[in-house]
Amino acid sequence: MAKKYKDFEPKWIKERAPKDSYRSIFRWGDPDFVKYPKESLYKMMKEKFDVTDEYFEKYNMSTGFDSVDLSKYPSKIDSKHLKYFISILGQDNVSTKDYDRLSVAYGQTAYDLMRIRQHKFENLPDVVLYPSTTQEVEKIVAYCVKHKIPLYVYGGGSSVTRGVECVKNGVSLDMRKNFNKVLAFNEIDQTITVQAGCSGPKLEETLNNAVNLFGAKRAYTCGHFPQSFEYSSVGGWTVTRGSGQNSTYYGCITDIVLSQKYVTPIGVIQTSHYSREATGPNLNQIMMGSEGTFGVLTEVTLKIFRYMPENRIRFSYMFKDWDSAMKAAREMMQHESGYSSVFRLSDPEETSMMLRLYNVDDTPLSPLLDKFGYKEMERCMFLGFTDGEKGYCKNVAKNIRKIAKAYGAMSMTGYVCKSWEKGRFNDPYLRDTLMDFGVVTDTLECTVNWSNMAKVHHDVREVCHALPHTIVTTHMSHCYPQGANLYFIFITPMNDAEEFKRYHTTILDAIQKSGAAISHHHGIGKMFAPWLEGYLGKKEYGTFKALKEYFDKDYLMNPGGTIGLDLPDSKKKFIKEK
Amino acid sequence: MAKKYKDFEPKWIKERAPKDSYRSIFRWGDPDFVKYPKESLYKMMKEKFDVTDEYFEKYNMSTGFDSVDLSKYPSKIDSKHLKYFISILGQDNVSTKDYDRLSVAYGQTAYDLMRIRQHKFENLPDVVLYPSTTQEVEKIVAYCVKHKIPLYVYGGGSSVTRGVECVKNGVSLDMRKNFNKVLAFNEIDQTITVQAGCSGPKLEETLNNAVNLFGAKRAYTCGHFPQSFEYSSVGGWTVTRGSGQNSTYYGCITDIVLSQKYVTPIGVIQTSHYSREATGPNLNQIMMGSEGTFGVLTEVTLKIFRYMPENRIRFSYMFKDWDSAMKAAREMMQHESGYSSVFRLSDPEETSMMLRLYNVDDTPLSPLLDKFGYKEMERCMFLGFTDGEKGYCKNVAKNIRKIAKAYGAMSMTGYVCKSWEKGRFNDPYLRDTLMDFGVVTDTLECTVNWSNMAKVHHDVREVCHALPHTIVTTHMSHCYPQGANLYFIFITPMNDAEEFKRYHTTILDAIQKSGAAISHHHGIGKMFAPWLEGYLGKKEYGTFKALKEYFDKDYLMNPGGTIGLDLPDSKKKFIKEK
Repeated sequence: MAKKYKDFEPKWIKERAPKDSYRSIFRWGDPDFVKYPKESLYKMMKEKFDVTDEYFEKYNMSTGFDSVDLSKYPSKIDSKHLKYFISILGQDNVSTKDYDRLSVAYGQTAYDLMRIRQHKFENLPDVVLYPSTTQEVEKIVAYCVKHKIPLYVYGGGSSVTRGVECVKNGVSLDMRKNFNKVLAFNEIDQTITVQAGCSGPKLEETLNNAVNLFGAKRAYTCGHFPQSFEYSSVGGWTVTRGSGQNSTYYGCITDIVLSQKYVTPIGVIQTSHYSREATGPNLNQIMMGSEGTFGVLTEVTLKIFRYMPENRIRFSYMFKDWDSAMKAAREMMQHESGYSSVFRLSDPEETSMMLRLYNVDDTPLSPLLDKFGYKEMERCMFLGFTDGEKGYCKNVAKNIRKIAKAYGAMSMTGYVCKSWEKGRFNDPYLRDTLMDFGVVTDTLECTVNWSNMAKVHHDVREVCHALPHTIVTTHMSHCYPQGANLYFIFITPMNDAEEFKRYHTTILDAIQKSGAAISHHHGIGKMFAPWLEGYLGKKEYGTFKALKEYFDKDYLMNPGGTIGLDLPDSKKKFIKEK
Repeated sequence: MAKKYKDFEPKWIKERAPKDSYRSIFRWGDPDFVKYPKESLYKMMKEKFDVTDEYFEKYNMSTGFDSVDLSKYPSKIDSKHLKYFISILGQDNVSTKDYDRLSVAYGQTAYDLMRIRQHKFENLPDVVLYPSTTQEVEKIVAYCVKHKIPLYVYGGGSSVTRGVECVKNGVSLDMRKNFNKVLAFNEIDQTITVQAGCSGPKLEETLNNAVNLFGAKRAYTCGHFPQSFEYSSVGGWTVTRGSGQNSTYYGCITDIVLSQKYVTPIGVIQTSHYSREATGPNLNQIMMGSEGTFGVLTEVTLKIFRYMPENRIRFSYMFKDWDSAMKAAREMMQHESGYSSVFRLSDPEETSMMLRLYNVDDTPLSPLLDKFGYKEMERCMFLGFTDGEKGYCKNVAKNIRKIAKAYGAMSMTGYVCKSWEKGRFNDPYLRDTLMDFGVVTDTLECTVNWSNMAKVHHDVREVCHALPHTIVTTHMSHCYPQGANLYFIFITPMNDAEEFKRYHTTILDAIQKSGAAISHHHGIGKMFAPWLEGYLGKKEYGTFKALKEYFDKDYLMNPGGTIGLDLPDSKKKFIKEK
């Protein structure tokens, strides 16, 4: 990891989390992997937070090394229900154990992590089931409907919207254990069909190894790489309408999914599987975004792409300021010369942090920047890489270079992009290491049209910065000819879940007021739900209610506020009625 | 037009249709434009139909030169309703005249044209209204709901699915006269907002002239060019989920629409206007495909594209057979080197006709084909052109050339593509000229996945050819990495609407049995509706019913079978339950 500190180094926790501990649940991913800030980044934080080394001398939150104990929150499941579930799934696939229940109760927003550290166990499932097949899920759903048992689904658990939280207790289906098989591979149509619990790495490894596994002519890629890639599932991507970091080329999951199978209270729903249809409202687009409230997604057919990393061209450029950088990004998106796969433009504050995070501050490039007029807290870093056929990649990179130069940018070579690639999936580890010291990191994102970009960037950042001593970094990614996603990341000293929620709420308010879409790819879950009806409009939102009543009139599927369906008006925020 | 015939030439009707005549209604487009077959095509038809010149000595259907007379079908509208409509729209914008009523009663399927020629006036509106604004439509819809008056919308009238037909009589809104304004142009976001009745040419001319009209930096294009372009409307494209011939590059209308405004019985519905959102089921994709059954589409915001015809590269290739041609097309779509804009592959029978239609039989290329082993009724013509930035176009064309050659194709130069371009929007005129002699031409299309392409092509053509003496041409267009649209065009001697419908039904049956999507871009309307629920599945189709009940519980919006919503089960076909 990072080089040794010259001065004081906080005691970053580097030990493996014990198997049965709280830490093993809230901590991101691989138990043996640790990430902590390098010294220059640590110093930057101290400065921004206006604290001394003293702040980092003790842990400011529980580190969660103790064993999970839910004896105060026992399972309330009726034994006759347990008996039934065991009869269809077997003893090994039905659990009321404390650890199993807690491990599917929360997602990955800082609000979740802080609540676990603070032992705030509000919403736990009574029983966790591990089904293997759509047929088993059919039986479970039918039984739950008959007995009015709330039903939740846990895919990869990377929700940052309280999407998986069992607000009404009941059953949670943990899809990680048995529901992760590849069901079909079709090289002619370039599709793969998987069970919903299939993880990102399993899917990608399968496709990369298609020659050996299926006798395919070549290797393939799924094209979908969210930051949560390693610990999220195909089902979660689909029901929340996720996006990968390469979406500017490959599209978001809503573009990549070809068809879906759901088990709903009214039975199995199989969407059709064509590239386009003119056969009434689009059922695939009705089911995606339902976030478990219409039923359980069990099988997904995805479009796949040729795996051609040899064609990838990496680039990075430094712009003089946010205004010229935004204009260049727009030109690149509207230029019709093809799309870069990763396309990421950082604002001045993020650029400042990135230069440390991606070690550019250690390279000879760093002093040159100031010299050439690319000034700290004005300059903006743009990076990315291409995917696709060789000539396509070349043309994309060539035009990006041309446009970047025309807007006054200086090439930073492919180095910065490579550094970013190293960190792209493991930055979440940093979050846990910092939270031990009571430093919270979280993100919010929204879709913005180009004509509103400067305003949203300004207004939302202003609200984020209303909390003093906060690092607020912003970048643009997932870009389109009509606009882009804006990502806001904040890092601030904070060690209480409710304090976090209050802060988070002010930012969501600001996003809605600014005229942005309240979620580009994180989904709505239970956390963003109060804003949804106000955002869409009452009559527009009514379509969701009509669909809900059709599929699940008893409100048993992911109940307790998901996408606001069973949320009383008193708990909704109507900030800006259309 | 075509050169003088050497031998017998039928008396193709070349006169302008009189202003108040039936012919002026059923005839395609520009009253001064005529198209008729050249001699080689005429001879081919005689041979295929197994008829002599004698068949073409007299007209076999009414030519419709007489004046429209609906005295047998008087308007039944209550005078108090008329009074109300006049009070809000003015006298000039309310009509119960025979001509006005008939002119919005039918679309453009041969079934419609034959019924008009046969004076079968089953389904006429009682009154035609010409609103100008969304506010006026709000008043009309509210009034119709209050008084239970069925409401229909007529956009460009090019429906081939009986989409506009006023089965329950009542009101028809003719959007051509006043509802065609451009409301907003946003160059930063690259969008244009228009009223739903805006025609293709008006939209495209506006965008091409953006520099003069809006002081824009450059000219733009809408990217959407269906064969009906000149006589279809933005609203019709949107509610039926249409596709243009350049969709392989620009996308279908479902990709191009950014947002929509509808007036429904429960009020105005405004969808959101972002490139992507993760905010529940996608409302834009719920409304597109509703075909007037949820409410009246009044305003549409479309993405627009840079107008760069100077970059266009035209190409055409001849393949030895359908199998190698299909494989090459698939490779081009899965190759990730960018997409051609027009991408059209004809099967052997269509190729045979095209060589005549596009005058290749008159060029030195023709005798070379046989010589080099590209044999009549085996060879397949592939043509198209690129759109986009210059380097992008070059890369697409280069890779198409490479792949075509690898699959044994011979370049036919850009000539054939240019000939196709000349006819692309005026082929429908040919249809009228032939129908005077009792020769019917119509089309059906469907989406097919690559792995099922050979079967669908074979099975559907077999059923088309079950009618003896029929020319059945097929082409692939609107292509994707996972499949393509297959287009079936049939030309056969026939002069009765009901006979046509029986034949048409056998083909739709065959499409559904073959495993194709029953419509790629024509929509469903009332003609394809009997198949829809069987195609989608009962529970899946139930979502449409749930939405219908939400928006229009009294079934007043485009009633009488549109997308099957008020069609009894006894009239539905469940050919292949999923």
